Amino acid sequence: MVPLLVRGPAWLFQWRAACTLGAFVQQRTWAGVSRIPGLGGPLVQRGSSLASSRAPEVVLTRERYPVRRLPFAQVSEDDLAALERIVPGRVITDPEELEAPNVDWLRTVRGSSKVLLRPRTSQEVAHILRYCHERNLAVSPQGGNTGMVGGSVPVFDEIILSTTLMNQVMSFHDVSGVLVCQAGCILEELGRYVEERGFLMPLDLGAKGSCHIGGNVATNAGGLRFLRYGSLRGTVLGLEVVLADGTILNCLTSLRKDNTGYDLKQLFIGSEGTLGVITAVSILCPPKPSAVNVAFLGCPGFAEVLQTFSTCRQKLGEILSAFEFMDAECMKLVELHLRLASPVRESPFYVLIETSGSGAGHDAEKLSDFLEQVLGSGLVTDGTLATDQRRIKMLWSLRERITEALSRDGYVYKYDLSLPVERLYDLVSDLRARLGPRAKHVVGYGHLGDGNLHLNVTAEAFDVSLLGALEPYVYEWTARQRGSVSAEHGLGFKKRDVLCYSKPPEALQLMQQLKALLDPKGILNPYKTLPARA
Amino acid sequence: MVPLLVRGPAWLFQWRAACTLGAFVQQRTWAGVSRIPGLGGPLVQRGSSLASSRAPEVVLTRERYPVRRLPFAQVSEDDLAALERIVPGRVITDPEELEAPNVDWLRTVRGSSKVLLRPRTSQEVAHILRYCHERNLAVSPQGGNTGMVGGSVPVFDEIILSTTLMNQVMSFHDVSGVLVCQAGCILEELGRYVEERGFLMPLDLGAKGSCHIGGNVATNAGGLRFLRYGSLRGTVLGLEVVLADGTILNCLTSLRKDNTGYDLKQLFIGSEGTLGVITAVSILCPPKPSAVNVAFLGCPGFAEVLQTFSTCRQKLGEILSAFEFMDAECMKLVELHLRLASPVRESPFYVLIETSGSGAGHDAEKLSDFLEQVLGSGLVTDGTLATDQRRIKMLWSLRERITEALSRDGYVYKYDLSLPVERLYDLVSDLRARLGPRAKHVVGYGHLGDGNLHLNVTAEAFDVSLLGALEPYVYEWTARQRGSVSAEHGLGFKKRDVLCYSKPPEALQLMQQLKALLDPKGILNPYKTLPARA
Repeated sequence: MVPLLVRGPAWLFQWRAACTLGAFVQQRTWAGVSRIPGLGGPLVQRGSSLASSRAPEVVLTRERYPVRRLPFAQVSEDDLAALERIVPGRVITDPEELEAPNVDWLRTVRGSSKVLLRPRTSQEVAHILRYCHERNLAVSPQGGNTGMVGGSVPVFDEIILSTTLMNQVMSFHDVSGVLVCQAGCILEELGRYVEERGFLMPLDLGAKGSCHIGGNVATNAGGLRFLRYGSLRGTVLGLEVVLADGTILNCLTSLRKDNTGYDLKQLFIGSEGTLGVITAVSILCPPKPSAVNVAFLGCPGFAEVLQTFSTCRQKLGEILSAFEFMDAECMKLVELHLRLASPVRESPFYVLIETSGSGAGHDAEKLSDFLEQVLGSGLVTDGTLATDQRRIKMLWSLRERITEALSRDGYVYKYDLSLPVERLYDLVSDLRARLGPRAKHVVGYGHLGDGNLHLNVTAEAFDVSLLGALEPYVYEWTARQRGSVSAEHGLGFKKRDVLCYSKPPEALQLMQQLKALLDPKGILNPYKTLPARA
Repeated sequence: MVPLLVRGPAWLFQWRAACTLGAFVQQRTWAGVSRIPGLGGPLVQRGSSLASSRAPEVVLTRERYPVRRLPFAQVSEDDLAALERIVPGRVITDPEELEAPNVDWLRTVRGSSKVLLRPRTSQEVAHILRYCHERNLAVSPQGGNTGMVGGSVPVFDEIILSTTLMNQVMSFHDVSGVLVCQAGCILEELGRYVEERGFLMPLDLGAKGSCHIGGNVATNAGGLRFLRYGSLRGTVLGLEVVLADGTILNCLTSLRKDNTGYDLKQLFIGSEGTLGVITAVSILCPPKPSAVNVAFLGCPGFAEVLQTFSTCRQKLGEILSAFEFMDAECMKLVELHLRLASPVRESPFYVLIETSGSGAGHDAEKLSDFLEQVLGSGLVTDGTLATDQRRIKMLWSLRERITEALSRDGYVYKYDLSLPVERLYDLVSDLRARLGPRAKHVVGYGHLGDGNLHLNVTAEAFDVSLLGALEPYVYEWTARQRGSVSAEHGLGFKKRDVLCYSKPPEALQLMQQLKALLDPKGILNPYKTLPARA
């Protein structure tokens, strides 16, 4: 028997003070953020080019935030000519064409880049970066521009390096399920490609129709299949990356196991384009399950949600592929703004459970056994079950479209937190009491099975005093639980100064050293991921 | 539909020449390797202290290999006194006590360290490394000393830093299954600890009775549960690491998701103690399956083994937890040296299939459906099924004890390769033809489900001409298939010069830069992982 040793999170307390100060500075800088348009307007689709629509112009990041341009060179006519030689006909300088890629889909940050490049091959990316490195030109890599934290748009006049034309599947192995493709392939298209061959992409997320696999890997996207298929850190088998100086690092292996030296690809997974530009991805796709079921259930309280989760893991075991939850406020917003109807009686909480298995009969039996228990014991008060594709999609849309409903409700303060599952909803209740009528809605939903809460607060318009009530409160609350202030969205531009709530100073220092090693001139996605002052 | 782009492994050919030369140099250096004792002798147990038994002494690494001591300081009396102040009563200098930790369990390498330290806490490890860093003293971290590549014993007089006394469980969360423990906990003991609480360690390997979890993580161990629970890169949630200069890096989070900055723990997973010393591990344990079955089957050929695997994935789906194979030669050795009896009729190949599920009845039905198909179609000619713990253990021992049987057969040339599964066994057949009667046995076994072949060649004694026939042939063959020359064993001291067969020069360079960044004086596990000349 191994004895138990008690340990306190000593580092947690050591850097709290510095962090709080940082958040306060940041808080003031956000005062100028304008309200997200879309209330009563057209459907906000992640990754769509809203910037070119008739929505009011987003304030330039350099005007809204107190960020200073670093001493990079400015793009000259000679540079444009040189770049034109590298990617002929694919150097975009038309201001109208540049509008959309300068603005994030949430319309909260806006760069002023004057050049966008559309390479087709890794060699072209290498030539571009070699040139930019020599000339000290900053580069902002961009995939589908569906990020939540302003990571994929320029802050100043960085050259936008788009992966849009890097959309080729390079190979697919129909025994092992290993897919090798360029970084700009769209997730949903890859999904269709592998599903036709009897496999499944190991990740799925709301933005699948626009997001690029390279961006998914660069941000270490989590999403809806994380519970079953785990992290990209396990399913990504290899990467090809172009380093800041134009060196091509080919670690594009298709092997499940490879212990030859340090696993360099891990450096680039989740580094948001700040250490290298991912140009190709090798990823392991699991076999497509032959039977999929979705249950949508109403629970009388959060304690019952948690007990339903425990029962679910016990009864459904290896066939459980998603356990999502949303509160009554989410359902109200989805009904109000999207005219979707709840398939079950009104409840304080709703749970979406998905099973994926290889035997329809067995799965149905397991599900029925599970449902009997949770309904019989009062953990669940109402529920519906879908086995056909159309109804499954309909039930999923209730959960997947919450973000969209929120964006129609007014200005949205967004938090993406990892918390111990038993404390997950306490923060939502705490905030509701703390904010009172100042907030329009305080909602909680997310990937309960992964301990990942999406906490969103809406208000009629941006309000600095409301922000002051939210921050650093939310971050401090999370840090006290040893949670993460960014579970899956990353840090990008907007969250980079709160990194210190989840990582100790020694970690921050090592991150800065890695950045200096891999990108000594700092040209790759500057002003992102790492705090400005560290 | 996404079009297909053809790409050649350009980098593969660029550095082949340099590599071949490296392997040739290495090959000559192995000429003095003595035969592994144990033929007819006592059972060789991984991690046991054979060095102190009556086995003939292993030649010192510094005498056998052309490796030069780097200019580290030598341990002085003052140093011993200073270290005694850091870990009072736990500075071992008794030559007899130092015998075992200076020799690897395979008895192929032997250091000449004169000091072994047994810290109990991370703070003590930090003090030790701070001191050694200042004094320029080299350190060889050691867990259970069960490695296959000489990674955990000193090469010269490095101070051995043993994690033996760091064996405390720090916390276990019985809802999430997250275990946090010190690095020196023995895998099997952790297994018992979490199984009592309804969970399972996500990794299992033959050396479980001796290996330390810190060593497992430092070597990114694969093992028998990889197929089901994936890589440690996904299941390890957090690490505490002491850096070369004594800085404690606390990334010991228990969160499933955390995207706050670069994932530093990944640097240390699989870096074999060359970038930092892992002092504590946070790991996600899956729920213990309520039903486990093992089928042991005979197949008439390797093509049938592959088809059995495909059928198995299709029919058993999510309950498949292991698919291991061994050839007839393996069975012969196990029968001959360990007096184990094959439970099925003699066959050219044997397959061990394990299922783990939450419903015994469902699993039995799936298995029966699978067995009916493979037996009916002639893919499998004979088989046996075990559902009780004792028989399951017995069947597993046929597969798990092959290493032991091999070590009793004579001198063993060991290769641990990742290959495309359809070519996996071709190398074994090729080698058998190539070596003819010069080899006693050429055997192939391993984790087929992961594309991981353990290729072993035995001979009466070490033979330089046999080695010449094996290397660089095996490495070149593997490189042509874009395989890995070390799937799960790592590189340690003995394989560090073949790294270039699986990684391009750009990767090698970046690895060297990372080493220089994290351990500028190179005191951590010198002469390991990275090639001497890179």
